[in-house]
Amino acid sequence: MNFEHSQKAQDYIARVKQFMRDRVAPFESQIYQDMHEMNPDGNWRNWKLHPRVEALKVEAREAGLWNLFLPDAELAHGLTTLEYAPLAEEMGKMLFAPEIFNCNAPDTGNMEVLYHFGSEAQKDTWLKPLLAGEIRSVFGMTEPDVASSDATNMQATIEEDGDEIVVNGKKWWSTGLGHPNAKFTIFMGLSNPENDRHNRHAMVIVPLDSEGLEIKRMLTAYGDYDAPYGHGEMHLTNVRVPKENLIMGMGKGFAIAQGRLGPGRIHHCMRTIGLAEKALELAIERGLSREAFGKPILQLGGNGERIAQARIAIDQARLLTLNAAWKIDTVGVKQAMTEISAIKVAVPRMAEEVVNMAVQLHGGAGMSGDFPLAHFAAGVRALRLADGPDEVHMGMVTRLELKKHMNRT
Amino acid sequence: MNFEHSQKAQDYIARVKQFMRDRVAPFESQIYQDMHEMNPDGNWRNWKLHPRVEALKVEAREAGLWNLFLPDAELAHGLTTLEYAPLAEEMGKMLFAPEIFNCNAPDTGNMEVLYHFGSEAQKDTWLKPLLAGEIRSVFGMTEPDVASSDATNMQATIEEDGDEIVVNGKKWWSTGLGHPNAKFTIFMGLSNPENDRHNRHAMVIVPLDSEGLEIKRMLTAYGDYDAPYGHGEMHLTNVRVPKENLIMGMGKGFAIAQGRLGPGRIHHCMRTIGLAEKALELAIERGLSREAFGKPILQLGGNGERIAQARIAIDQARLLTLNAAWKIDTVGVKQAMTEISAIKVAVPRMAEEVVNMAVQLHGGAGMSGDFPLAHFAAGVRALRLADGPDEVHMGMVTRLELKKHMNRT
Amino acid sequence: MNFEHSQKAQDYIARVKQFMRDRVAPFESQIYQDMHEMNPDGNWRNWKLHPRVEALKVEAREAGLWNLFLPDAELAHGLTTLEYAPLAEEMGKMLFAPEIFNCNAPDTGNMEVLYHFGSEAQKDTWLKPLLAGEIRSVFGMTEPDVASSDATNMQATIEEDGDEIVVNGKKWWSTGLGHPNAKFTIFMGLSNPENDRHNRHAMVIVPLDSEGLEIKRMLTAYGDYDAPYGHGEMHLTNVRVPKENLIMGMGKGFAIAQGRLGPGRIHHCMRTIGLAEKALELAIERGLSREAFGKPILQLGGNGERIAQARIAIDQARLLTLNAAWKIDTVGVKQAMTEISAIKVAVPRMAEEVVNMAVQLHGGAGMSGDFPLAHFAAGVRALRLADGPDEVHMGMVTRLELKKHMNRT
Amino acid sequence: MNFEHSQKAQDYIARVKQFMRDRVAPFESQIYQDMHEMNPDGNWRNWKLHPRVEALKVEAREAGLWNLFLPDAELAHGLTTLEYAPLAEEMGKMLFAPEIFNCNAPDTGNMEVLYHFGSEAQKDTWLKPLLAGEIRSVFGMTEPDVASSDATNMQATIEEDGDEIVVNGKKWWSTGLGHPNAKFTIFMGLSNPENDRHNRHAMVIVPLDSEGLEIKRMLTAYGDYDAPYGHGEMHLTNVRVPKENLIMGMGKGFAIAQGRLGPGRIHHCMRTIGLAEKALELAIERGLSREAFGKPILQLGGNGERIAQARIAIDQARLLTLNAAWKIDTVGVKQAMTEISAIKVAVPRMAEEVVNMAVQLHGGAGMSGDFPLAHFAAGVRALRLADGPDEVHMGMVTRLELKKHMNRT
Repeated sequence: MNFEHSQKAQDYIARVKQFMRDRVAPFESQIYQDMHEMNPDGNWRNWKLHPRVEALKVEAREAGLWNLFLPDAELAHGLTTLEYAPLAEEMGKMLFAPEIFNCNAPDTGNMEVLYHFGSEAQKDTWLKPLLAGEIRSVFGMTEPDVASSDATNMQATIEEDGDEIVVNGKKWWSTGLGHPNAKFTIFMGLSNPENDRHNRHAMVIVPLDSEGLEIKRMLTAYGDYDAPYGHGEMHLTNVRVPKENLIMGMGKGFAIAQGRLGPGRIHHCMRTIGLAEKALELAIERGLSREAFGKPILQLGGNGERIAQARIAIDQARLLTLNAAWKIDTVGVKQAMTEISAIKVAVPRMAEEVVNMAVQLHGGAGMSGDFPLAHFAAGVRALRLADGPDEVHMGMVTRLELKKHMNRT
Repeated sequence: MNFEHSQKAQDYIARVKQFMRDRVAPFESQIYQDMHEMNPDGNWRNWKLHPRVEALKVEAREAGLWNLFLPDAELAHGLTTLEYAPLAEEMGKMLFAPEIFNCNAPDTGNMEVLYHFGSEAQKDTWLKPLLAGEIRSVFGMTEPDVASSDATNMQATIEEDGDEIVVNGKKWWSTGLGHPNAKFTIFMGLSNPENDRHNRHAMVIVPLDSEGLEIKRMLTAYGDYDAPYGHGEMHLTNVRVPKENLIMGMGKGFAIAQGRLGPGRIHHCMRTIGLAEKALELAIERGLSREAFGKPILQLGGNGERIAQARIAIDQARLLTLNAAWKIDTVGVKQAMTEISAIKVAVPRMAEEVVNMAVQLHGGAGMSGDFPLAHFAAGVRALRLADGPDEVHMGMVTRLELKKHMNRT
Repeated sequence: MNFEHSQKAQDYIARVKQFMRDRVAPFESQIYQDMHEMNPDGNWRNWKLHPRVEALKVEAREAGLWNLFLPDAELAHGLTTLEYAPLAEEMGKMLFAPEIFNCNAPDTGNMEVLYHFGSEAQKDTWLKPLLAGEIRSVFGMTEPDVASSDATNMQATIEEDGDEIVVNGKKWWSTGLGHPNAKFTIFMGLSNPENDRHNRHAMVIVPLDSEGLEIKRMLTAYGDYDAPYGHGEMHLTNVRVPKENLIMGMGKGFAIAQGRLGPGRIHHCMRTIGLAEKALELAIERGLSREAFGKPILQLGGNGERIAQARIAIDQARLLTLNAAWKIDTVGVKQAMTEISAIKVAVPRMAEEVVNMAVQLHGGAGMSGDFPLAHFAAGVRALRLADGPDEVHMGMVTRLELKKHMNRT
Repeated sequence: MNFEHSQKAQDYIARVKQFMRDRVAPFESQIYQDMHEMNPDGNWRNWKLHPRVEALKVEAREAGLWNLFLPDAELAHGLTTLEYAPLAEEMGKMLFAPEIFNCNAPDTGNMEVLYHFGSEAQKDTWLKPLLAGEIRSVFGMTEPDVASSDATNMQATIEEDGDEIVVNGKKWWSTGLGHPNAKFTIFMGLSNPENDRHNRHAMVIVPLDSEGLEIKRMLTAYGDYDAPYGHGEMHLTNVRVPKENLIMGMGKGFAIAQGRLGPGRIHHCMRTIGLAEKALELAIERGLSREAFGKPILQLGGNGERIAQARIAIDQARLLTLNAAWKIDTVGVKQAMTEISAIKVAVPRMAEEVVNMAVQLHGGAGMSGDFPLAHFAAGVRALRLADGPDEVHMGMVTRLELKKHMNRT
């Protein structure tokens, strides 16, 4: 276990921190407030991008802080999963910050899929503009009518018909579907029902303006549309795309999903740790600045202990995540399944509690739009479900633990 | 401890249950959806009432299920706190139901204040139309600039000036302020700074159209405007009302607040218990109807245990609240301070956990607007802060416990 | 729900409290210390009774505070389950107190079995001296070689052979087996393997001096022999007893167990609540009397909140148990299965936490023999396992909850 | 953060593991059972050493696995704190194992004190035989009459009188005091009450056979004497030792304590992590080998999830501790105060829960002496108090967190 930040990583950390502090932070409150007011409801066709965010994207790109997540040294900066981790943490401190560095989900995951598994043509057509931040993308995985935690439940289908692929099915919680620049979805469906469960699905690229693809609505997550990104529901009825849009081949969906999984989990978790750090900072600030019964409220009752508990919980979660990142880099995703599942369980729960504590210390203000905490609360709650509920990942950890036990005895 | 429902109470329970099942439940989903769509944002001046809710109010009134909370036998039904408790639980199962029976906060509390402490003129002018459901009202207590958990922090002032009362100050989290029918606020402020801490404040009735009263905005609570009620912020600058609007007299605010407190706490908590029962019911329904890995998800991992834990937690919370109600009825609020504080701590936390569990069992759907759970989550989270944060009430329980210990030894 | 203490119950509460305060409390520390020193190890054949406890038994009997648990008005005092509950709570405050009132487990349960299901001869021979406190008894249920939480796992056998019953099998955690006055065990075993699972077992009375019955050892529970009672392991090899020792008949074991269950659970839980009250009292006392950093330690950090949480948790647990008692009295054990299982889950866990908190506030002293807290900790930990682990009872609550749901829909 | 095990460390890990597996494990059950039976009560003067343990010590020493904790390359093996950490984890899996490698508390801490702060004469007289495993030692810190969590409460005194030092005071929870080979205590007392709180105390070496030193008794910790080590209470009345026995000088006690603190905390925590791993292993073993309701009990209800939670909690705790070790090695104890306090809070709590879970899965057996779990439970419970209660360490983390916040803003 060596989580030491390389000189290169330290350099990037310093630069991202400085950019966040000098360029982004001054606009933080304004952007949060504007994004809400600019996009007041679920009419996603009216959603607008924030001009300051757009401007900051240009700045970040010019500052060489762009696509930091991508391990490729030519297309990006060649940072390992471990090296990128602390950068994701920094970005996680503001909900809109990842996009500024072109490091926001699900685009990062989609770019990784195209980078690792896409054809040259797919890379040209879809990866390039994503890397340039010109378009955005969506991932279609979860379905409204079945328990998606069990992949074998998936009802969407992907079928070959001559030179075309025919896609049918409903997906929801497709993040980014409401974004004005969203152009395509990577769509997963059942392609080979005759195969074993790991070779039954495919992934295909479907442009959002395809005939037969209908965006039904944007969903609220704890009352939040998360505009201008949005979590959408789309129905695909006999949507036809050229066979070239199939990624890798029929039956390869599961393998791609596995590959997409590891680093993406690290990104999610590190952003969440950044979010928790920010919540703790806000809690301390509020707790020291407000007084009741003659003392700063942080000194009342168990409030002080809660700060310590948050600090300890965050530090444990970070170490667990860095360790998972290090294992991905050194032995690969397949050998790091316990670690990758473990962080999915531990980190969102930790953040849920830290944010909840911070809200409590803020009183009513914590639930209002005056602080980012309510957004944080919705975000971390979603993370306990996104990408599979806690329980599925606990099941994975248990299975692997029992297997280790059997091998030992 | 006798929590047995009297024959009278049982009769009302049956009637409220039947009304909820036959008249309200068929419109449940529609009303939730409409209320959201009819009032999509924070522009409270445009907020509309739901015609079905309005119609149901008429029906409930005609059915003799109106103002059930008020203990007066002539103005209402003469139900004790304990007798009303199970009715509040029933109403709590749908967020909009209490209004249908004219039993919604903060109007109930305000009606109680006017009923117990108001002058005849105040009753004529303000209580009557409230009892008739013609107008709605607001309570101005919490302030944005100080920790309101300590009442001595209160900055708003109430001063006499000849025949008038001059009111200044800011209040927020004033629930119902956005409602089209909201007409006045009961406003608490510092009136006699020279007195001891229990005789320093006053309460005064301030019409919302008073000159100098500005409604600044509606606040979101975890992203939810809770339209058409709303939680608002109002600023009062040299607002003048006739002296007749003062309730009881200068320096009486704390005494009134104490009187308002006990039954109101019971109402809140019983509604919250109803909400938790509903969440548990939804969890079971979802858990049995969705399958993964070949089984209903309720049978996977620890999900079954979570149902048992919710059942046990709800039952404990209910008994604690009924006991507090019984003590209020039999020995009075002052002798029931431990019990009244205890339920404020225990019930919202219990409901927070039950709702969170139900959300988890629903997957993404639980966070969406397709189920009331996201509203529930916001509502129960707010209850850990509304009317004082948990910590203040734990402090009260501790103090009383130590006092009992001292007396014993 | 009417948990109000009848005048009769109140009278008994006052008398038991007074007896505990005036007669027992003065010897409390001495008895705890002596019992430990008189019986330092697991050599149960040397275990001695404490003369003061013996003397107090005589006193309690003379004071008419004897066999209070038994609902029979002639043999005892005719107290209902609900009326006895607060008395059990009082007795629970000292581990050795129940015996003083001849109300200690497992004798109470065994007396109930004989009272409800025993033949006249069995009553004469075994119930009478138990009621007189002249002998003590044991219950043989749990087995060392199988998971006893599933009754169908039971390996012990009870077979008829002419006029005799032949008993074979191993039992452990048979409480009271080391007591100098222990004379017999009620022994449960498989009698009718051909029947359905509720009619497969029998219960038989086996004198402890029977040939073939070997007491192998006393077990420690978290290091505690619990002398002079003891939790023992006994092996029965072809033990023969007359057919008259069979209770009710072959195949009736499960029915008897069910009947024994309900009130016994109430007794256990109420004693545990008394124990928790005592632990809370000790915590407050210690917390107020020791100072650190210039304050009583109770005022440091979250310690005060922990007192409030304990108070609230204890009160909830008590109400839940009283409600179960009331249901047993009014609708019977079979209609109170949710309640009876619920308290088995909730009460020991509550007490485990309260005791743990009290230990923490005592520092090292809390773990030592200078306070009863270490004994309490072992006792409450055992209760999460005795009579079935938490998990089995949660399973019961879940099953009943789902059944209610099915019936509703 | 680089926790990678050096080649040297890996070599030691392999050797310690092999020694534990091949030489110690075969005697594990026997030694646990014997230690209990050989030393059945608190008559510490009769306590006996286990011959097998003595033999294994000789073996370990010959195998070059001796004094591994000591960083000195000549006297020991020159292992850093981080390099020793995984070895401590291995040893922690059996309660008696640390002694086999001469790595048991409090001797390790005392050897470190003498190594870092002792005079040459002190090293010759006391350190040498300790390093040789010929004698054992005790640390006198906690006092029975005051809250020792606040060092300023300390009542024991250390005074100069000519060429002698006069020592007075009571200490308890002095671990190892009952050991047949225990020869001296390092004793802390108030030496310079006139100084500021960090320069007020001294430490002095007091032979246990000094006149005026009385060993009053051994204490039970949750019923366990922990023989043949024991946690004792000693009273010192005008005990006189030569001035040469003073360590460093009057007023230096606090500085020495701080130096002793860091690595010792790592040792404790890593042993506790080993203990938790062992408990988890036992839980899995039991959970797979016992069946109920037709399945291994590990597959029932939430049991599987509990395995995952334990795995995740252990891994987080280990990483937190390794990080603290690494910081001690690289930036020193003073710069690692948050980390050192954090592990003191997090690790014992984690282990308390894991052990409790393992006990539950074992049923009654888990509480008995048939498994080491009951000893584990007592041990981990003690760790939440030993060396300062959790709350004191949370206070430290909070203080440092607020200081960081102040510096930032």
